[in-house]
Amino acid sequence: MSRIRLEIRIVPRPGLLDPEGKAIQSGLQSLNYTDIHEVRVGKILLIELDADSTQDAINQATSMCQRLLANPVTEDFLIKLHEDSENSE
Amino acid sequence: MSRIRLEIRIVPRPGLLDPEGKAIQSGLQSLNYTDIHEVRVGKILLIELDADSTQDAINQATSMCQRLLANPVTEDFLIKLHEDSENSE
Repeated sequence: MSRIRLEIRIVPRPGLLDPEGKAIQSGLQSLNYTDIHEVRVGKILLIELDADSTQDAINQATSMCQRLLANPVTEDFLIKLHEDSENSE
Repeated sequence: MSRIRLEIRIVPRPGLLDPEGKAIQSGLQSLNYTDIHEVRVGKILLIELDADSTQDAINQATSMCQRLLANPVTEDFLIKLHEDSENSE
């Protein structure tokens, strides 16, 4: 078993209404960022788990998304290995 | 001007309490995913905007994060060019 860090992104499906994205877009426009065409907002989950292999970890995460984390009707998810690059700015 | 798609991640700083992450972790544990050590939850914003260059777009996004999108006390942000790879599963 080794400790593996995964990153799961869950974003609203293209074409579906995203009210949070619209709100952020209009907030940005009122701050004079007028060249914005679209904002979509999703979630990112950073998960640290023990697994036999990377593939095993990804399989577990896929099952977590299907069972709990993502809404299969409205959201898409994408699972990646997490590189340690979060500390910007 | 060209149309540029950026991806902005906003995640709670390491060490800070993340109650949403804790809630997800305990939800997963009650579904028998017992090998999870940590879950942290952040936001991902997919922004499509017009800019003179990639660097100009990234500069605009940095300023948006500093002025509106991220909380400088509790959150880190990371800006990347967005690759079109959202449609998994």
